[in-house]
Amino acid sequence: MKLPEAWIISVGNELLNGRIVNTNLSWLARKLTIDGYLVRSALTVRDECDDIVWAFRTALDEGASLVISTGGLGPTFDDKTSECLSKALGRKHVVNDEALGMVREKYRERNMPLTEYRIKMAMMPEGAKPVPNNAGTATGILVEEGMSLILVMPGVPGEMKDIFERIEPLLRKRAPPLHYMSKDLLVGGVPESAAAPIIEKVMKKFPVYIKSHPSGHEIRKPILKINITASSSNREEAEKSVREALKMLKNMLAEQDGVIEGVEDAG
Amino acid sequence: MKLPEAWIISVGNELLNGRIVNTNLSWLARKLTIDGYLVRSALTVRDECDDIVWAFRTALDEGASLVISTGGLGPTFDDKTSECLSKALGRKHVVNDEALGMVREKYRERNMPLTEYRIKMAMMPEGAKPVPNNAGTATGILVEEGMSLILVMPGVPGEMKDIFERIEPLLRKRAPPLHYMSKDLLVGGVPESAAAPIIEKVMKKFPVYIKSHPSGHEIRKPILKINITASSSNREEAEKSVREALKMLKNMLAEQDGVIEGVEDAG
Repeated sequence: MKLPEAWIISVGNELLNGRIVNTNLSWLARKLTIDGYLVRSALTVRDECDDIVWAFRTALDEGASLVISTGGLGPTFDDKTSECLSKALGRKHVVNDEALGMVREKYRERNMPLTEYRIKMAMMPEGAKPVPNNAGTATGILVEEGMSLILVMPGVPGEMKDIFERIEPLLRKRAPPLHYMSKDLLVGGVPESAAAPIIEKVMKKFPVYIKSHPSGHEIRKPILKINITASSSNREEAEKSVREALKMLKNMLAEQDGVIEGVEDAG
Repeated sequence: MKLPEAWIISVGNELLNGRIVNTNLSWLARKLTIDGYLVRSALTVRDECDDIVWAFRTALDEGASLVISTGGLGPTFDDKTSECLSKALGRKHVVNDEALGMVREKYRERNMPLTEYRIKMAMMPEGAKPVPNNAGTATGILVEEGMSLILVMPGVPGEMKDIFERIEPLLRKRAPPLHYMSKDLLVGGVPESAAAPIIEKVMKKFPVYIKSHPSGHEIRKPILKINITASSSNREEAEKSVREALKMLKNMLAEQDGVIEGVEDAG
């Protein structure tokens, strides 16, 4: 089954000087995979307009069905994502009335006026729609561009999740309904290089994806976590593929003196 | 000061289905920043040759001085980074004798023969050099391409770090000597949108980079972590820039009823 492809763009110098671990990326990648997308690539760029424009143009030009960005949506000078998205799309960067209403309402709670810095948070590419953010002030931005949907969110994880989950039903509607199944098999005593030909055989036989993750030491004390995943429009089919692949793997690894230490849901 | 630019490439489906948080990226980004590089961009791609070739070509074509990749260097069928790097460079993919010696030595410890899957770990682009890996079996790969240096490492964090730190002195030699200084100022009671014009003023006055990270709630209970960084070939100059920027920030934030909750080394 051909899945729609998603690209994830992360904006922020703090991701490229190592001050922040990008947990937004893994959270979004997991969500999108379960929602029926193939996450094709992730681009992390600095708070520089040229770089942000490059990231959006690359994802769109490579044919992304869905482009999701996090970061660079607040009130400060270095929050440039919205303005640079307008540039990338060749659209005017305008105050969106609906977004301005949302921002004004939030500051009104505290009798705070709309300043230039606050109005900035209501500016977006012409034709875009704001997405409410119940966890903060910067609204999300949703834009259609040709066959692609673009969703722009702040980088603060609580705000990002609030906005994403509001849009998730729409994202699911645009993807084929999909059942995703994933198990981890833990095996001791077999080096990854000895498991490699076994994994190849099992993948040839069943419609699963298998990936081994070594821990321990390849030669002295090898421990492998072998992840088996299948996805299908039919839930039973996905479960059956994983179950049968797991059985064949266990048997073949046991022949190599592998010690099966357990099977876990890979969540 | 113009710093040499580094691009980081992360290879692995597990990064794009959300099973793994990419801590290698933040670790490397931090190291490279301290070593005197500007990390310009990070690309995360799947275990597909076309995508891996695209990532290396993009970094090289965009003028990276240094390209660092992690992931896809083991013995299994989906470990494709080395082979696809050869394609990206238009070089033959060959068994490197020095690497083969390293791999053979490791398996000999346990009286294990060299199989096709193990020999695969000694294959690399023609003209590349292997880098010993004391924490595992896949050797690192070092290649010069035009003005760019390429370092390819496995994705297992312990192996990646072992290889990186062996090469780090060479990387430092290729960058200008640099002193990097970074402090976090914690302030309560000032919304990010009110701190924005202050930060702009301070950045205009001193050669520092300032970035605010909101936590708490922008309106109801704003807490800001304001990170100030400077780097310079002169240690005292970097320290002075951060110190003076910090002082001006504290004064201006106090005028906005900001409560300074502390200053921390940003590590």
